[in-house]
Amino acid sequence: MAKNKDKQEFVSFITPRDQDFSQWYTDVITQTQLCDYAPVRGCMVVRPYGYAIWERIQAEMDARFKDHGVENVYFPMLIPESLLLKEQEHVEGFAPEVAWVTQGGGETLTERLAVRPTSETIFCSMFSKWVQTWRDLPMKYNQWCSVMRWEKATRPFLRTSEFLWQEGHTLHATPGEAQEMTLNMLEVYRECAEDVMALPVYVGRKSDKEKFAGARATYSMEAMMQDGKSLQAGTSHNFGTNFSEAYQIQFQNKEGKLQFAEETSWGVSTRLIGAIVMTHGDERGLRLPPRIAPIQAVIVPIAAHKPGVSEACEKLFVELKAAGIRVKLDDRDQVSAGFKFNDWELKGVPVRLEVGPRDLENGVVTVFRRDTLEKSTLPLENLAESVKTLLDSIQQGLYDQAKAFRDAHTYPVETLEQLGEAVEHGFAKAMWCGDRACEDAIKERFNATSRNMPFDQAAHRFGTKCVCCGKPAETVMYFAKAY
Amino acid sequence: MAKNKDKQEFVSFITPRDQDFSQWYTDVITQTQLCDYAPVRGCMVVRPYGYAIWERIQAEMDARFKDHGVENVYFPMLIPESLLLKEQEHVEGFAPEVAWVTQGGGETLTERLAVRPTSETIFCSMFSKWVQTWRDLPMKYNQWCSVMRWEKATRPFLRTSEFLWQEGHTLHATPGEAQEMTLNMLEVYRECAEDVMALPVYVGRKSDKEKFAGARATYSMEAMMQDGKSLQAGTSHNFGTNFSEAYQIQFQNKEGKLQFAEETSWGVSTRLIGAIVMTHGDERGLRLPPRIAPIQAVIVPIAAHKPGVSEACEKLFVELKAAGIRVKLDDRDQVSAGFKFNDWELKGVPVRLEVGPRDLENGVVTVFRRDTLEKSTLPLENLAESVKTLLDSIQQGLYDQAKAFRDAHTYPVETLEQLGEAVEHGFAKAMWCGDRACEDAIKERFNATSRNMPFDQAAHRFGTKCVCCGKPAETVMYFAKAY
Repeated sequence: MAKNKDKQEFVSFITPRDQDFSQWYTDVITQTQLCDYAPVRGCMVVRPYGYAIWERIQAEMDARFKDHGVENVYFPMLIPESLLLKEQEHVEGFAPEVAWVTQGGGETLTERLAVRPTSETIFCSMFSKWVQTWRDLPMKYNQWCSVMRWEKATRPFLRTSEFLWQEGHTLHATPGEAQEMTLNMLEVYRECAEDVMALPVYVGRKSDKEKFAGARATYSMEAMMQDGKSLQAGTSHNFGTNFSEAYQIQFQNKEGKLQFAEETSWGVSTRLIGAIVMTHGDERGLRLPPRIAPIQAVIVPIAAHKPGVSEACEKLFVELKAAGIRVKLDDRDQVSAGFKFNDWELKGVPVRLEVGPRDLENGVVTVFRRDTLEKSTLPLENLAESVKTLLDSIQQGLYDQAKAFRDAHTYPVETLEQLGEAVEHGFAKAMWCGDRACEDAIKERFNATSRNMPFDQAAHRFGTKCVCCGKPAETVMYFAKAY
Repeated sequence: MAKNKDKQEFVSFITPRDQDFSQWYTDVITQTQLCDYAPVRGCMVVRPYGYAIWERIQAEMDARFKDHGVENVYFPMLIPESLLLKEQEHVEGFAPEVAWVTQGGGETLTERLAVRPTSETIFCSMFSKWVQTWRDLPMKYNQWCSVMRWEKATRPFLRTSEFLWQEGHTLHATPGEAQEMTLNMLEVYRECAEDVMALPVYVGRKSDKEKFAGARATYSMEAMMQDGKSLQAGTSHNFGTNFSEAYQIQFQNKEGKLQFAEETSWGVSTRLIGAIVMTHGDERGLRLPPRIAPIQAVIVPIAAHKPGVSEACEKLFVELKAAGIRVKLDDRDQVSAGFKFNDWELKGVPVRLEVGPRDLENGVVTVFRRDTLEKSTLPLENLAESVKTLLDSIQQGLYDQAKAFRDAHTYPVETLEQLGEAVEHGFAKAMWCGDRACEDAIKERFNATSRNMPFDQAAHRFGTKCVCCGKPAETVMYFAKAY
């Protein structure tokens, strides 16, 4: 093929997962150009391909928030120190990680301003001004923004000094409404994780030790990565009146009496992109679930100089696009078809359609599925419908595969030795007495933490004694090493 | 109406525009709950109604950027001081307004970090890493984020220490492509301003004095507020190779030689919300152009307890919503119909539909247009289509009214006295010799600045002498007081 000899060759090396999972992750996210390291301590740049995934996540989440009556707002990124200090437990949780603005407009400020690590305190300061009577409730607000936490060890998407997220903050008249909101938002998260990102998750309540600083109860969803570690992929908190008492958020109820408002907050972040990578990726790079993939299908012309090939590709592109498929036609002429195959496999595009003279003669296209690496052919007729069916099948396949892995690596354990062995490979499911001392002992010995407690405890219960201390135990808890 | 006596009364007072335009503005933006003052120096909270307008602006702009091949990204908000210092002119322009992070994670930092006032410097640092050959170009990136400028005098939406914006940053191989991009983005801004926000704008080039710090050329769109002052509503800059030389952004061109890349940047911000308020608002509050209004039509039931009224309102709501109209049914029972009328007029909803027993008997609804304050009736049959036609008519009407005002308050002037008089009421259009000394003299004497120079100078030229110094002049320039 003398024609191709001056075309660019594809050079890419990804560390095998079983050799060094952490290096594999770094290789994948940088070579696929999801992100890059920024010249700012612990910060990353989210590049177009990574940001396009975030935009998909935003769209899916935002529509569901709005269905629940949530409205978007924007609050300042700087929070005066005095405001941050009002709720003691919250301050102690976040103060060590805060970045402070101390100079502005050429002058030293009289009060330090925190770059928001989270925005409960500033939302509360405005809520106390806006809420007067029961008629003002509920207030359901959300903002899409970035937050800053001065982390010591950072990894792109998983833990960076600055990251993108959404934070919902809601106020309610009754404890029942606040609890319903807390769980509704957890359910939105679970649905987006499982149905959109193909991430099977365990949902449940956090222990008191692991809950959010200032919350009465924290709920989370926990996803299992391919190295068996847990990634906390979203949290929803019920504050009760903890913050509203500290910030004096009171309203006149229907009986004319002053009452503290019930409050919730909930968030997901660009961590989810890391979860997608570490759940679905393989030796060739990313595998993106179709519903979250910026490009769902790529068309690669084979022998594009042959009569009819380019035209057929153009026609297919228009047809698939009109059918609502996120499709790309890779008509680059300075690289070979082989280069393109490698490139889009690395980037995890779910479906590749190869269109060459022989395919056209036979009235078909050659189809490559990124999830199974299988090649087959599909008739040109009604191709958009066939591709849609294929995308649905890939979506389901990725979920099933991840769930099978997760289930196979979740181990009910009855002894500490079993627990220690389990968290080397996945999650330990154990009976726990509820004492923090046992959580501390497990953390100390195995570097594993309590993740969450399933909702339907009765259905999950499988013993009567604490895995750690042997005392009577009624609680089922997942333990795992965690990101 | 004994039934209504315990219903909430509407209390609102807006300062008349001709009494104090500035206080009118403050009254409108706070009473309509577009925003509120935050407990942080010079910062505001964007409330749901204001943020919903911003989301409309984002959607309109973002789709057009993407049509031009622009991709969204996210860069860190903190910029190390050493990075900021590389382009001298740029630093001098922004340094006085920077807020600095000096402490993080409980320690004093070895280098100060600027909260981004704009992101040219950090984009450039990554561009220099990402660009190798002509194949990597063009790179067309944009980010939606907030920026921080430590302003002395602040006003919500118009000038705040932190504000929301988008900043586009693009790299090109040739000066021609960069100039085309610069002007294409200015055209996107003009189109969104005029066709979506109903803001007539003058587009043109800034003087060297008024251009962006570090740009070779800056283009702007300038809108006239009802007090005759100019609001710079969007800017687009061509940097040439100014930044790429400072940050070493070089690529190998098709001839194999190293060459500096050509660069542009362009931005609009939440200022646009201020422009909408000050262009269209009246004594009753906001008047929102339908294409940007979060709520385009509100349905108010009259005597909702009478048989059939609630049902008819529900049915209408479903019908209009299905037709793609952003409609709200105001079924609050604790406030009177009069309260609702005032409330939605204050908030600038373009169309109000009143539905009472008599309307239903006659097969009509009563329609109130917010732009003209006219009441009429429309048949229930095909109401969605009639409302759409009405919304188009209101959109056009608001634009025409604003343009008529703008044109009537644009004064061609030939003497400094005329210029001084003109900028008390609107824009002065003057011949200018091009010397900065004349701009300085006009600023000194009248507190008016050069705004921009129309593109088709020949078509606008109306004299041969500079309005200020009397020397030969070939340039037509708009002068005005500005926000």
